Amino acid sequence: MNETKIDFSQGLACPIPKSEYDKVLLAHGGGGTLSDKLIGKMFISQFGNEFLNLQHDGAMFSIGSERVAFSTDTYVVRPIFFPGGDIGELAVNGTVNDLAMCGARPLYISVGFVIEEGLSLDELWRIVLSMKRAAENAGVQIVTGDTKVVDRGKGDKIFINTSGIGIIPNGRNVSPKRCMVGDKIILSGKIAEHGMAIMSAREELEFETQIKSDTAALNGLVEKMFLVDNDIHVLRDPTRGGLSSTLNEIAASSDAGILIDETAIPISEEVKAAAEILGLDPLYIANEGKLIAIVGSDKAGAILSEMKKHPLGKDAAIIGEVTETNSGRVIMKTSIGSKRIVDMISGEQLPRIC
Amino acid sequence: MNETKIDFSQGLACPIPKSEYDKVLLAHGGGGTLSDKLIGKMFISQFGNEFLNLQHDGAMFSIGSERVAFSTDTYVVRPIFFPGGDIGELAVNGTVNDLAMCGARPLYISVGFVIEEGLSLDELWRIVLSMKRAAENAGVQIVTGDTKVVDRGKGDKIFINTSGIGIIPNGRNVSPKRCMVGDKIILSGKIAEHGMAIMSAREELEFETQIKSDTAALNGLVEKMFLVDNDIHVLRDPTRGGLSSTLNEIAASSDAGILIDETAIPISEEVKAAAEILGLDPLYIANEGKLIAIVGSDKAGAILSEMKKHPLGKDAAIIGEVTETNSGRVIMKTSIGSKRIVDMISGEQLPRIC
Repeated sequence: MNETKIDFSQGLACPIPKSEYDKVLLAHGGGGTLSDKLIGKMFISQFGNEFLNLQHDGAMFSIGSERVAFSTDTYVVRPIFFPGGDIGELAVNGTVNDLAMCGARPLYISVGFVIEEGLSLDELWRIVLSMKRAAENAGVQIVTGDTKVVDRGKGDKIFINTSGIGIIPNGRNVSPKRCMVGDKIILSGKIAEHGMAIMSAREELEFETQIKSDTAALNGLVEKMFLVDNDIHVLRDPTRGGLSSTLNEIAASSDAGILIDETAIPISEEVKAAAEILGLDPLYIANEGKLIAIVGSDKAGAILSEMKKHPLGKDAAIIGEVTETNSGRVIMKTSIGSKRIVDMISGEQLPRIC
Repeated sequence: MNETKIDFSQGLACPIPKSEYDKVLLAHGGGGTLSDKLIGKMFISQFGNEFLNLQHDGAMFSIGSERVAFSTDTYVVRPIFFPGGDIGELAVNGTVNDLAMCGARPLYISVGFVIEEGLSLDELWRIVLSMKRAAENAGVQIVTGDTKVVDRGKGDKIFINTSGIGIIPNGRNVSPKRCMVGDKIILSGKIAEHGMAIMSAREELEFETQIKSDTAALNGLVEKMFLVDNDIHVLRDPTRGGLSSTLNEIAASSDAGILIDETAIPISEEVKAAAEILGLDPLYIANEGKLIAIVGSDKAGAILSEMKKHPLGKDAAIIGEVTETNSGRVIMKTSIGSKRIVDMISGEQLPRIC
């Protein structure tokens, strides 16, 4: 099939000049501006289409008369077992959440394992049991899979890709573009727990209280929220890059600004203290069981009180609003009353967090 | 979410005893009996459901009134560029083919990159362009994606997961269980080209004629075949583990035996000679642009002549039939007229072939 081959002699030049970078850096996978550049210039520019261009947590399209969401994520977290979870549970919950953030009810999950030669079967078995339990909890089925083994030293114990399919019930229309002036911004709970749990496991830090990953499937909480308001505008889970990156992505997708109130952001004392010791900003630290909802201001109170009834939403809070000013930017009113721009992170604080 | 945690103190014991294996071996990813055991005992036993248990190339289910196929594969081929293709093209074609083997028309593809820190952006760019071209050729759209970067020495340049969704037109019912006594077995072309191309690239072997990978999207050929007979019984692409593994899997899924004729199997002189030099059996060497169709004997001739009109089917041949005897087994009539059992490979001949 000669027509499938590319003639590089007259090919398109690489859109990132060598003078800037000629190799992939860890930071290109960090979920910040470097990731955005790589994805935008190299992937979206070539693969781009009406679905991919939305840069949502998943693609949304119709199959017959149904609206469907389709999402993929590969998990490369290190270590593979950490306080509060493991790579298997994370991989199932992550894709369930990406589908839920499209307003979809997650149904079917695929699993692609890349195992490094020498991984103990006991560890693999623990991961399998954990994925099974996570799928049951989220109400999804693992319907297809693939297993590859790479030579020792060419992987890192195990990487897991999960892709998923969900159905979007009628009337839901969730998109970062629907962020509207006057909307309220709800955060479902305390931030930075997943990232700090990974960090403490990796560095063998001992805090007085063990910080656990918040990994959880959010589809149950999301369904409760839609019962109150079928017209939720935006849903996103602030994973890699943390709350700041997700809010910046939403602001960039819309014509509005985002104003948040530092004192309203839920965070535990332990996480705050640990982040301070390590010199990390919790706004940039990953979450794996939290969501941001942007909703009409008249609905915000009712949605919030419904969320507070759910175990995964008990610490939910309205943390800000969408403004006409500062279009495309995220501004934070700090605890001392001043205002500052919350930038997107450029590289990564913590590589391989998920 | 305490309920998502597994209590290992009373957990299920690993179903593969330590006395047998306690670590994952390269051979567990080779597509042979060791792969089957790992997948069966550890994955299917826990994740098992009506879709996964079929062990088809993909899962098939309904969304609304449509029948849908969903498939996943991770590509870890080494080297990432090889005669006749590269990992990017392979990743797109592979998932397109898995969907086509379900009788589906492939529509949407997801891409998950795991990039090793230090991969040159030029190489990544070549892969991206190649994926774009492959998607265009196959008529599919890349609609969602994910990019992870792992530390140098914790990956191997790039691994690519692709998952895909396709729609199965009405009336098609393709399944390895539909292999029926008297059916004819058609092979779409010459075997073992992908595996030999990888092997020659890896070992820097020089043959008189360069052997090229046969990587190609088979969905166009499959559609032509369905035009002749909407009731094709079985479709499979003999990738990892080669023709022998795929035929053994089909025989094991049905209650019938498979009898093939060695002299009828298309193979080029170059591949035959190269395999002989390397001491490899072409029946066990991977293909990436070939399919096996098992069809009603009254339809076989018409399907074959339609296939021969297509560039990817010009060397197609009827290589055998489904028998009442030797249930669950693959028997080959050799070129000297004797008969022998064609076993499934236990480990792998060539690791990381796809």
